[in-house]
Amino acid sequence: MASLVQHPILQQSFAIIDREIGIHGFTPDEYAVVRRVIHSTADFDFKQAIRFSATAIAVAKNTLVTGIPLVVDVNMVRQGVQTLVARTFDNPIVVAVDQAKVALPGKTRTETGLIECCRQYPEAVYVVGNAPTALAALCAAIAGGQVRPALVIGVPVGFVGVEAAKAQLARLEIPQIVVAGRKGGSSVAAAIVNALLVLAWESL
Amino acid sequence: MASLVQHPILQQSFAIIDREIGIHGFTPDEYAVVRRVIHSTADFDFKQAIRFSATAIAVAKNTLVTGIPLVVDVNMVRQGVQTLVARTFDNPIVVAVDQAKVALPGKTRTETGLIECCRQYPEAVYVVGNAPTALAALCAAIAGGQVRPALVIGVPVGFVGVEAAKAQLARLEIPQIVVAGRKGGSSVAAAIVNALLVLAWESL
Repeated sequence: MASLVQHPILQQSFAIIDREIGIHGFTPDEYAVVRRVIHSTADFDFKQAIRFSATAIAVAKNTLVTGIPLVVDVNMVRQGVQTLVARTFDNPIVVAVDQAKVALPGKTRTETGLIECCRQYPEAVYVVGNAPTALAALCAAIAGGQVRPALVIGVPVGFVGVEAAKAQLARLEIPQIVVAGRKGGSSVAAAIVNALLVLAWESL
Repeated sequence: MASLVQHPILQQSFAIIDREIGIHGFTPDEYAVVRRVIHSTADFDFKQAIRFSATAIAVAKNTLVTGIPLVVDVNMVRQGVQTLVARTFDNPIVVAVDQAKVALPGKTRTETGLIECCRQYPEAVYVVGNAPTALAALCAAIAGGQVRPALVIGVPVGFVGVEAAKAQLARLEIPQIVVAGRKGGSSVAAAIVNALLVLAWESL
């Protein structure tokens, strides 16, 4: 299929990252994801922090092309991916926080909405850029056998519950892309999804 | 005025940052901004990189309460600020990239839209989280006397033209908040605006 036209500034930025990245052990496809994350943050720490499970990239490429739904935790992630989704596979984008008018007792609203998404989209690609509570709830649902996402992108950012939720995900045998430690965020989540969409598109 | 209710997880996160930040020379108001940026990125590098001009915080507090328009470069920034804007001063949010259907020759679409915003909102608060081309165009319009923004938040991220645009802004005598170097982004821009909205609200 035709290559997605990428802006010259993006191409120049990628060339600079290629020169500065140094030695790494990523496959070419994994590196395309890492490079896009570094482009969106100007932070080379992500070279050390991003982890891909063995089948994550292959699953992403195979399922994104089918138009699989993307469940994202917050609207900033949707905003960051919707342009490229519209130019590629038109995957439905479901925003977890919008699925809950109010939070269930003792839960955040994003977590409450995520649990609702688990019921409706048990096999979607899940993308958590913001709410560690949502990632923890998703992990509990996976561990309990209620859902079997095709892929989980687990990159919430922050200081409370973030590392624990990521560790919870890492223990599950589910295709996953994780940023270890405290870093992550909506821009990182969007960059990962956008890189995977380009890889999927170019594999056709 | 009543304090804005902040989620307990946000308060806990702030307490962790307070313990880890170490010695700094920020005023309490400036630190409230820095802390919110670190919260949104988990990246303490911003402690060194954020620069406030002498009047930036005072201008932000005085103008946000009047409902001054916010011109933001891209939709991810709008998405990141609109909840708190709606809970405080209901400032109009104008997204530069949406003001241009197509890019002018040799310009990016965000830059083209930003130039249009300069005509319509010459005294707004300008927030650039993404497009260095938009920040450079804004700086040229300021230097040329066509616009006099109340405040410029100049925090584009990236590898091409970013440091040059920030340096261009730093030379202008205009109230400003800048992140030096390559880092920045939509989440950083949104965090700065949200912190300023809270400061403005609590000053009433």
